[in-house]
Amino acid sequence: MLLHLSTWMEIEDYLKRSKTVVIPIGSNEQHGPTGLLGTDWLCPEIIAHEAQKQHPDLMVAPTFNIGMAQHHLGFPGTIALRPSTFMAAIGDWCRSLGLAGFERLYFLNGHGGNVATVEAAFSEIYAEATFLEKRRGFAMKLKNWWELKGVLPLANRQFPTGHGSHATPSEIAVTQWAYPDAIKTANYAPQIAPTGPIREAIDFRARYPDGRMGSDPGQATPEKGGELVAAAVAGLMDDVAAFSSETAPI
Amino acid sequence: MLLHLSTWMEIEDYLKRSKTVVIPIGSNEQHGPTGLLGTDWLCPEIIAHEAQKQHPDLMVAPTFNIGMAQHHLGFPGTIALRPSTFMAAIGDWCRSLGLAGFERLYFLNGHGGNVATVEAAFSEIYAEATFLEKRRGFAMKLKNWWELKGVLPLANRQFPTGHGSHATPSEIAVTQWAYPDAIKTANYAPQIAPTGPIREAIDFRARYPDGRMGSDPGQATPEKGGELVAAAVAGLMDDVAAFSSETAPI
Amino acid sequence: MLLHLSTWMEIEDYLKRSKTVVIPIGSNEQHGPTGLLGTDWLCPEIIAHEAQKQHPDLMVAPTFNIGMAQHHLGFPGTIALRPSTFMAAIGDWCRSLGLAGFERLYFLNGHGGNVATVEAAFSEIYAEATFLEKRRGFAMKLKNWWELKGVLPLANRQFPTGHGSHATPSEIAVTQWAYPDAIKTANYAPQIAPTGPIREAIDFRARYPDGRMGSDPGQATPEKGGELVAAAVAGLMDDVAAFSSETAPI
Amino acid sequence: MLLHLSTWMEIEDYLKRSKTVVIPIGSNEQHGPTGLLGTDWLCPEIIAHEAQKQHPDLMVAPTFNIGMAQHHLGFPGTIALRPSTFMAAIGDWCRSLGLAGFERLYFLNGHGGNVATVEAAFSEIYAEATFLEKRRGFAMKLKNWWELKGVLPLANRQFPTGHGSHATPSEIAVTQWAYPDAIKTANYAPQIAPTGPIREAIDFRARYPDGRMGSDPGQATPEKGGELVAAAVAGLMDDVAAFSSETAPI
Amino acid sequence: MLLHLSTWMEIEDYLKRSKTVVIPIGSNEQHGPTGLLGTDWLCPEIIAHEAQKQHPDLMVAPTFNIGMAQHHLGFPGTIALRPSTFMAAIGDWCRSLGLAGFERLYFLNGHGGNVATVEAAFSEIYAEATFLEKRRGFAMKLKNWWELKGVLPLANRQFPTGHGSHATPSEIAVTQWAYPDAIKTANYAPQIAPTGPIREAIDFRARYPDGRMGSDPGQATPEKGGELVAAAVAGLMDDVAAFSSETAPI
Amino acid sequence: MLLHLSTWMEIEDYLKRSKTVVIPIGSNEQHGPTGLLGTDWLCPEIIAHEAQKQHPDLMVAPTFNIGMAQHHLGFPGTIALRPSTFMAAIGDWCRSLGLAGFERLYFLNGHGGNVATVEAAFSEIYAEATFLEKRRGFAMKLKNWWELKGVLPLANRQFPTGHGSHATPSEIAVTQWAYPDAIKTANYAPQIAPTGPIREAIDFRARYPDGRMGSDPGQATPEKGGELVAAAVAGLMDDVAAFSSETAPI
Ligand code: NI
Ligand code: NI
Ligand code: NI
Ligand code: NI
Ligand code: NI
Ligand code: NI
Repeated sequence: MLLHLSTWMEIEDYLKRSKTVVIPIGSNEQHGPTGLLGTDWLCPEIIAHEAQKQHPDLMVAPTFNIGMAQHHLGFPGTIALRPSTFMAAIGDWCRSLGLAGFERLYFLNGHGGNVATVEAAFSEIYAEATFLEKRRGFAMKLKNWWELKGVLPLANRQFPTGHGSHATPSEIAVTQWAYPDAIKTANYAPQIAPTGPIREAIDFRARYPDGRMGSDPGQATPEKGGELVAAAVAGLMDDVAAFSSETAPI
Repeated sequence: MLLHLSTWMEIEDYLKRSKTVVIPIGSNEQHGPTGLLGTDWLCPEIIAHEAQKQHPDLMVAPTFNIGMAQHHLGFPGTIALRPSTFMAAIGDWCRSLGLAGFERLYFLNGHGGNVATVEAAFSEIYAEATFLEKRRGFAMKLKNWWELKGVLPLANRQFPTGHGSHATPSEIAVTQWAYPDAIKTANYAPQIAPTGPIREAIDFRARYPDGRMGSDPGQATPEKGGELVAAAVAGLMDDVAAFSSETAPI
Repeated sequence: MLLHLSTWMEIEDYLKRSKTVVIPIGSNEQHGPTGLLGTDWLCPEIIAHEAQKQHPDLMVAPTFNIGMAQHHLGFPGTIALRPSTFMAAIGDWCRSLGLAGFERLYFLNGHGGNVATVEAAFSEIYAEATFLEKRRGFAMKLKNWWELKGVLPLANRQFPTGHGSHATPSEIAVTQWAYPDAIKTANYAPQIAPTGPIREAIDFRARYPDGRMGSDPGQATPEKGGELVAAAVAGLMDDVAAFSSETAPI
Repeated sequence: MLLHLSTWMEIEDYLKRSKTVVIPIGSNEQHGPTGLLGTDWLCPEIIAHEAQKQHPDLMVAPTFNIGMAQHHLGFPGTIALRPSTFMAAIGDWCRSLGLAGFERLYFLNGHGGNVATVEAAFSEIYAEATFLEKRRGFAMKLKNWWELKGVLPLANRQFPTGHGSHATPSEIAVTQWAYPDAIKTANYAPQIAPTGPIREAIDFRARYPDGRMGSDPGQATPEKGGELVAAAVAGLMDDVAAFSSETAPI
Repeated sequence: MLLHLSTWMEIEDYLKRSKTVVIPIGSNEQHGPTGLLGTDWLCPEIIAHEAQKQHPDLMVAPTFNIGMAQHHLGFPGTIALRPSTFMAAIGDWCRSLGLAGFERLYFLNGHGGNVATVEAAFSEIYAEATFLEKRRGFAMKLKNWWELKGVLPLANRQFPTGHGSHATPSEIAVTQWAYPDAIKTANYAPQIAPTGPIREAIDFRARYPDGRMGSDPGQATPEKGGELVAAAVAGLMDDVAAFSSETAPI
Repeated sequence: MLLHLSTWMEIEDYLKRSKTVVIPIGSNEQHGPTGLLGTDWLCPEIIAHEAQKQHPDLMVAPTFNIGMAQHHLGFPGTIALRPSTFMAAIGDWCRSLGLAGFERLYFLNGHGGNVATVEAAFSEIYAEATFLEKRRGFAMKLKNWWELKGVLPLANRQFPTGHGSHATPSEIAVTQWAYPDAIKTANYAPQIAPTGPIREAIDFRARYPDGRMGSDPGQATPEKGGELVAAAVAGLMDDVAAFSSETAPI
């Protein structure tokens, strides 16, 4: 079920048989000369929606589409939440879902830059219960889609060089598979982008002039994207099942 | 252009010819026995994307899909930001778009409950500039889609009684037009829901047991939804043009 | 009763017979060449205190005298809270009055620019209860004094043209009636001020050089002010009675 | 000049000859069986307005009437800001007055419980400039009215025993002088209230059942209040003059 | 016991016989040409650790080593928390210790600039309970080490002139006693530093070019420091005992 | 140099030859039946101070001794900052050091639970500059001491089984080496503690009854601790040198 295409009564029924919800989360940020600005939220949405299509009873929430991308703000089209804002928003999403009765909140993430802040947000949400000497009532998990079982090995076979860490051929391939009308091309110079640290936006743009980090996105194809989605869907179903069956200590 | 299906270089080019961006904004909240939880963010997204399809150079940002819906949290599936969180998030969206060079940020809204908080957010954003004795550099506008020229008169003709204020037949018709596979039916009792004030969630659910306020959503049809979208698209293009051509005082 | 001229024991007694309190709220901001800086908090205070004089058992709290006036900060004498500060303060006022046992908090407002932020504050206060799955224990209402029954029709008769939206002849007339020693005069150029949007302070002062918006305050007289106060007092008593008698759902 | 009974143009003129403004600040909180809830904000307002009457060119801002009174919230009629809210509000008042061109912000305080939080607020406001490596542009000072030159010695002569620290005969005398129609009487038991520490509200009410701390307010008379006001006015004018003539280092 | 050199099981045992903990708190800030940057947190740590050495069952927490020192930030090596940050941190320390079962939190302070903010923090922490209509469960106290019984009279005998208020010979003597290898010397010009108000950092450095306020630190010796520590330890034990034996009202 | 045992003039001199400062950071939290509550801040302090002893010109700041340990709050003696507080404090430390002229802020970390929040804090600090379209002026780096070159391989040789992730024999060995008088013993049951996820405090204590996670701390000896410190010091000097010599893009 897509939560946003359901009624509240359908959710009420669903909660009688499952307490788990999958929330695609990402970022809207520059992805080099050919990557879509939406890449990082589109990828987990594509994977989660494809999983739901194959497994209709998987509950998928609306996509959390803006994340921690302050370093990309030197490139137009990027939209970013500062970490404190991001944490407040994650908190309210989770508390809302917890009020409804969801007990397993599974965030399928598409942006490495989100990880620290989302984990900090989880700690903030747990801490609220801790300081009240209460149980939280729900558990949260964040998983990067490329870390789902089987995905990274496949990507490494597909792209033995030039995978890099931002505007990677694998994430661009996934969006090409889902949005074939939005495939872009460019000459990359250099073919494989430089690597280095991540700091404030001015520093970032000076280090990475076209926005890529360590990647050669020219290797992406819709077919490879389809393979990645297939692997990710399988990995997601396994991981969600494991999380759903976890038991809390008494 | 859909911003999220564009590259940063395409946005850079766009900004040479226009400084305006349309941001669909809404809420994910219960909409009675048959309304989709996503109704309030789907409606402005449907209208803005349809407008973009007809007018390809309209710039449409990703959808801001969670809003001020605390009063609906007694119904599962609702996700809400508290106003302070909402304002922080609106602030970071606007500052991000402003950094990119956008000067006219037009929020097309699908949820009446958002209005006060979004207007307060705008004031907070302007105040930041005011206290620094600077110009803000961009202007913001919020418009409810049903207040676009021609829409409400049409809705009143379509639904002379039982339009109400929440889970209205007009908004449900719009989603029926766009998502015909997700049309739901129910017996409404009473046919037209009660009206009254909006307070905390427990109070709300006690007053409005099935979630509707003053409405009879059973009158919605996909055809009426299509008419509403057509009217809204025309009204949107006019209103965006007026906003874009507004000049700032020297 | 004026709350601040009462003892806590008198309040304790009052709460045995009524749960309602009226809080005048406004702003301290420029009001054109002749309007008092305090106009927006003086008007509701004048009306509420006059009502209390006529109806001694009406409970009137101290005046909340600074509001959302960031756009006026280009003119000296303006004092403004940014919306986030304003919301925090409204929250603490309301929680304090709620702790005391007040169940109906009626804000009589004198500044249009306060409305969005105060409504957002109310939502924040309700949301606190909602996220704790509790009842709030009190209800809040905001009413602009010019929207009390009978006031705006009277103002329209008194000032068929040049009423405008800021530094209006009606609000200035009210202060003239109450503070006849502080009546100011000026030549207005133009006689009726321009209108337009409200943004940051620099933009505001450029659009509205003497501070007025759409108004000709030269039409104000103390007599008209007295008539307005009389109408407002009657409207206030009706509205407060209706709010006080409202019942909460079980 | 009373700022709120002036126009922005009058303030603009005033700023050509002086950069100083006096802001009465206090609290609205229980003051024992006979003390007015408004005592702590009425006293500095009474003194500042009397000073302004005698010295018309003294600039007096609207009264900041709600302060740090969390410990009194066990008694109805108390309204309190938590320190974080209070600091945010003080910050916005000061920044607003600073934008206008005021360079000496003199807070005349009526509530001992405000001191720590207001001083912390001043540090927060200075810190904002410090972290930006800028000058603040204005200086702030807080003065308790009973610490103005000559006041405490007079109070000690008037009330050699039973002055205490809350609901003191001196503050009650000042309000009796200004509001003779609101004088209350009661039998005090014990005649002099107990003393001790200040903690949360439940603890406070258990320690101080009628709200007084160490005081016998029965000794207050309007005449003594008048003497105290006269002394305070003289002290205030001296202290404000010294603050106004202070020079900043280059 | 030093809390940080204990195990949680040892703390659990300790709480069966005492509910009191001493927390050294200070600041890391410039202390003139010869004072250590750590002076203000080293002094209370030195005193509390010495007291614990003499009285092994005194519970001493880790040192809170950064405080409210914004005015010193014009001198390198200073590290400061803005008051709002400081208050949040104090709050979390206190809530943590309260969760553990400590009921008397005694802060031994080494920096006058901390007082207002720490007291405001205490009020914020009490207010949290007050607004929930609960008891707080623990009491907090702040004591400057130089105000412990016997200390200031001794310092005045040791340093009849040139004690001053910042970079005082007494605090420097204490650090000389504890860290004899880190004694520094300099020529002071003037021998006794100027005095005046405390504002933002630029203003501070202009008024106090070498960082001292009113002091002649050249009089400090390790021997005098040892005397001061001895006096402070005795005063501390008395004061902690009194605080520990205080009873709460029922 | 230990910053807190230096004067501001010594720091001013140091900044002429280096822009780097090492800040030990950790947490004060339960470490099982035998681990010191201070383990996680003592370890990086021990290593950094030992490095400074060997390399006197290494600049070491005071230790940031309280971190993100909400999950340990079910065990007395733990003191924790919620992530939002932690981030605010890290921010003020970094801004303070940046004002002084430090350009490389190197945090040597002793607590895995700090990583996400500190990284989020860094992003918040960079974002502040990004939204102002400025360079930040300094770079920040966080390094866990056990990830310094050579440390983990050594620990794995020392403790081939039962190293675990909390209350590890390696961290306890380091504190045994530095604080031989505070070595504790206990019977561990089971010898190797269980592993699993980290949630709120109640959940944590139910999963890990004596506080350990996956570890057998009984294998720790002071000698192994000394070896680990030696390796860490070497690794630290290398890593700090690399960070210090990093150049920013123009
Ligand atoms: Ni990406
Ligand atoms: Ni709706
Ligand atoms: Ni007005
Ligand atoms: Ni008082
Ligand atoms: Ni000091
Ligand atoms: Ni550890």
